[in-house]
Amino acid sequence: MTARVRVPASSSNLGAGFDCIGVAVDRWLVATATLLAGTSISIERGGRLTAVSVAVDEDLLARGFRAACAAASTPATGAAIDATSDIPVGCGLGSSAAAIVAGVLLADAALELNLTRQQIVEIAAALEGHPDNVAPAVYGGAVLSLRTPAGLVSTSLNVAAGIELLLAVPPFLSDTKAARALLPKTLPHADAVVAASRAAALVQGLSTGDGALLGAALDDVLHVPFRRARILGYDAVALAAQKAGAFGATLSGAGSAILAIAPRERSAAVGAAMLAAWREIGIEAELITCSSAVPGATVTHIPQTVQPVSTEIS
Amino acid sequence: MTARVRVPASSSNLGAGFDCIGVAVDRWLVATATLLAGTSISIERGGRLTAVSVAVDEDLLARGFRAACAAASTPATGAAIDATSDIPVGCGLGSSAAAIVAGVLLADAALELNLTRQQIVEIAAALEGHPDNVAPAVYGGAVLSLRTPAGLVSTSLNVAAGIELLLAVPPFLSDTKAARALLPKTLPHADAVVAASRAAALVQGLSTGDGALLGAALDDVLHVPFRRARILGYDAVALAAQKAGAFGATLSGAGSAILAIAPRERSAAVGAAMLAAWREIGIEAELITCSSAVPGATVTHIPQTVQPVSTEIS
Repeated sequence: MTARVRVPASSSNLGAGFDCIGVAVDRWLVATATLLAGTSISIERGGRLTAVSVAVDEDLLARGFRAACAAASTPATGAAIDATSDIPVGCGLGSSAAAIVAGVLLADAALELNLTRQQIVEIAAALEGHPDNVAPAVYGGAVLSLRTPAGLVSTSLNVAAGIELLLAVPPFLSDTKAARALLPKTLPHADAVVAASRAAALVQGLSTGDGALLGAALDDVLHVPFRRARILGYDAVALAAQKAGAFGATLSGAGSAILAIAPRERSAAVGAAMLAAWREIGIEAELITCSSAVPGATVTHIPQTVQPVSTEIS
Repeated sequence: MTARVRVPASSSNLGAGFDCIGVAVDRWLVATATLLAGTSISIERGGRLTAVSVAVDEDLLARGFRAACAAASTPATGAAIDATSDIPVGCGLGSSAAAIVAGVLLADAALELNLTRQQIVEIAAALEGHPDNVAPAVYGGAVLSLRTPAGLVSTSLNVAAGIELLLAVPPFLSDTKAARALLPKTLPHADAVVAASRAAALVQGLSTGDGALLGAALDDVLHVPFRRARILGYDAVALAAQKAGAFGATLSGAGSAILAIAPRERSAAVGAAMLAAWREIGIEAELITCSSAVPGATVTHIPQTVQPVSTEIS
């Protein structure tokens, strides 16, 4: 049995939605797995994945694959995985989440584990450490995820038609673990109150397209103030986006990419301004634009000689 | 010129929407003002307002009236105010906000100040110290308010048709100022992250009626953990509400009232369970139920001998 998956990139946090909100981004990891005898996994890496140099057993595709087997109490199986991706690696665009989700989905499809989407998100989030990239990679669109006594809840958020997400991606990485270590242990209570109101504003602003709400929501107090100094050019690029008509700008995940949200009619100007601001300090960034909801992961089962049939994941 | 206003009660915070989200409640303060020569204000208090014993110049109706004059740069004017209310005073139901809004609206109407609704909210919020009761008292329904560089933004939130708000009001007061002093100066960063995710869940949960989201949203970490011990019976009443089928329960404002949100079909059972839990420790509480959006303040101009005409406030 061979299975093929296609998993989108994602941008987490969106300012005030720290560790709970993410949105699928129109870049893709595509991978196929063919089951093999034994327990060893091989991975052929193409596209942006050639930047990955970890040992196969540490590769997130393999770890996702094995985590799915373990969660379904299925013996670990060998597989030949062939993967390629146009998602920039290590830039805050959910390349890790996409790889983990792809691994989980490949195991689910190839071994017919019949995992639900919620289980897939939970397995992948456990590996990733948080659900905010994993959930949009699975469901598509914008997703709010939070842990409740009843388990992890992921819910799709409405995104107004008139707004556009722009991601300017510089050619340098951001170490997410190091970025997390920069966060303070405690926060003034008043800042936590502001953070909560802006998270509420993010949900409402995405849904209505209200620029004042989105502007407040993108001006986060929980993480960006502690991280932005690490991203060369952050202040200039964020300011350029706003001056060109964006509601606001923020780090995508922990960076290095910068996300702006803009009214559609300002989108081209905002994208150009962000790239120009980076170019001014000698950095050639690339631009990714999401003008409508990006769908979530899809799975294609490829039984031996039959034509492939694309299916919604369960 | 005589003006009459009708201003609803309100419940703020709704758990995770601390200091930024409030909802209008179906209890009303009704007041009329007749302009008088000179600058002194007289107030005739009826209904629940007979519990108010402050001097007239300290009365929030008078302070709201004068704040509106000051904001409009109009000389302070004398007025005879006649006010009555069925809003419990000092129980976290926005009785102060209703009085301030009523005073501002009376001045606006009687003196034809032509204040916008946004100005009315700003004037009243400046007096009250925060906008979360004032905004729903003016606009009705559920409202998110937050301060942005461009000023105070208030936006109406969608509330799903299938959910009901229940308020159990005990016959004892809660001192809001003392309740605020109980809040810690700092919070663990991790708690602030949880608070933000639950504020996002509140907006999404109100809009969709999703019980898991509302349950998480009502389980606040910013204020209730520090305040609930002051409200005799809080734990028992909140637990009784949940056991009877509410998504969750929380303090209304800083209490003493307790707010539960429940699916409509569980509403009667939840209300009865809350009252029973309080009765068990010897407290007779009253129940207020809001099954659909409560409208905001209305103003009636009463020119000398002409029939009154009710109008939307500007």
